[in-house]
Amino acid sequence: MEQAKRVAIQGVAGAFHEVAAKKYFGRSIVAVECDTFRALARRLAAGEVDFAVMAIENTIAGTLLPNYSLIHEFALKVVGEVYLHIEMQLMALPGVQLPQVAYVHSHPIAIAQCREFLDTLPPEISVIEKNDTAESAQLIVKNKLHNTAAIAGSLAAEMYGLHVIAKDIHTCKENFTRFLALSREPRPSIGNNKASICLEVAHRSGSLAAALGVWAKNGVNLTKIQSIPIIGKPYQYSFYIDLEWDDAAAYQRAMTELTSCATNQYLLGEYKRDRWEN
Amino acid sequence: MEQAKRVAIQGVAGAFHEVAAKKYFGRSIVAVECDTFRALARRLAAGEVDFAVMAIENTIAGTLLPNYSLIHEFALKVVGEVYLHIEMQLMALPGVQLPQVAYVHSHPIAIAQCREFLDTLPPEISVIEKNDTAESAQLIVKNKLHNTAAIAGSLAAEMYGLHVIAKDIHTCKENFTRFLALSREPRPSIGNNKASICLEVAHRSGSLAAALGVWAKNGVNLTKIQSIPIIGKPYQYSFYIDLEWDDAAAYQRAMTELTSCATNQYLLGEYKRDRWEN
Repeated sequence: MEQAKRVAIQGVAGAFHEVAAKKYFGRSIVAVECDTFRALARRLAAGEVDFAVMAIENTIAGTLLPNYSLIHEFALKVVGEVYLHIEMQLMALPGVQLPQVAYVHSHPIAIAQCREFLDTLPPEISVIEKNDTAESAQLIVKNKLHNTAAIAGSLAAEMYGLHVIAKDIHTCKENFTRFLALSREPRPSIGNNKASICLEVAHRSGSLAAALGVWAKNGVNLTKIQSIPIIGKPYQYSFYIDLEWDDAAAYQRAMTELTSCATNQYLLGEYKRDRWEN
Repeated sequence: MEQAKRVAIQGVAGAFHEVAAKKYFGRSIVAVECDTFRALARRLAAGEVDFAVMAIENTIAGTLLPNYSLIHEFALKVVGEVYLHIEMQLMALPGVQLPQVAYVHSHPIAIAQCREFLDTLPPEISVIEKNDTAESAQLIVKNKLHNTAAIAGSLAAEMYGLHVIAKDIHTCKENFTRFLALSREPRPSIGNNKASICLEVAHRSGSLAAALGVWAKNGVNLTKIQSIPIIGKPYQYSFYIDLEWDDAAAYQRAMTELTSCATNQYLLGEYKRDRWEN
């Protein structure tokens, strides 16, 4: 019998990271809980898990820049991506209804995403920031908090036996989070049609335009670009870039040409693209 | 006598926002405290204050994407920028020393920035996330917390009469935050050498490269670019871009040419660039 894959996730079981890990790797994985993204990267690099799943950007909160640095620092490889539609539920112990709720617990980003709903609640209800959405749900059960509700995803309600007292309370209905699947080894090249790379270009007007021109000429599409100042090199920038292509040969040609524009080029990984749907 | 400028800041007096506001507008301003960035934008748009100062990016945490949306939504104008070197101090009531500290309070980003120092503390000390660095300092005084220290900037220690029990505890010594000065009206064009714009380009390979080519040709330098998916238009992106120039006429020429590449173009503001120093 095949051993179940061990996949590191950030947060506790039932968190959106676990949902993403199961969507990507299948339902039979063993999710290994990590307190922080740094711990997740460290455990993967050390061989304690087979893979990891790491949030990289969210429609509302933007890109999690420090996560790019962790991929770099621990020399991890991006082997896939998965988009998750984020839906938030207000959940409490069975029998508890909204009038009994004095506290709402959740992660600060989840709280921000439900701001409009929270503004409709009586002002006596206190909103308390916690480390994690699913952990907020878990603590309600663990500490038998009859006066507390948590904002988290449906999986957390299922796992911890809470019931949903207000459904789909997120303000923006088109909220997705993109997660990266990480490994110690790169993915075999067959079927890949997307890449994440980090570029440093010369500090002169036009060097980024030249790099982008190389991709454009070869029919390679840029789907994400983030500039980041390089620490210790004032006014120099790294660019984290995602590329998509249909013709793998054209992509390879572009990457060869690119070496003349970029002073530094680091491949985070090549993989198959995912699509997000509502 | 000239009336002091009323400048909205996020957080309470003594926060890094106040330091930034004074660095940009001078020491005689009246800082108007706002709980959230949304409240800050709303108060400026409503004419309750003359200007606002808003953090837009940090070396460690990256870009605060929702703040771009707020500038857009409330039709505010960027009239300046200011870089602040962020230094974190551990502070407590006079007489309190490290061995008496059981709790450390601060904002989650400040906590992340001092992680290495915090890891050297005895494990019995609990680190508690709060809304704001300066507010953590303020609460220690207000509630006479003899067993609690706050992580905040030097100004907060000064303002609330706390003493620094561990100095410069931030891990990364090259940590800066960039703030934008906002107004209801654009800045007069004389002396401007930087602009922040938002572009939507056609969804085809090469349209961004073409836009960048226009700037490159005219000697206009790109210093920041962030792509953001457009809500409700899958696979379409906005680009938030900062540009710098020495020749204002060349910049104007480039912006006129640009209209042929971009499907949508929105000027957040033109202003004088600031430089960061360590």
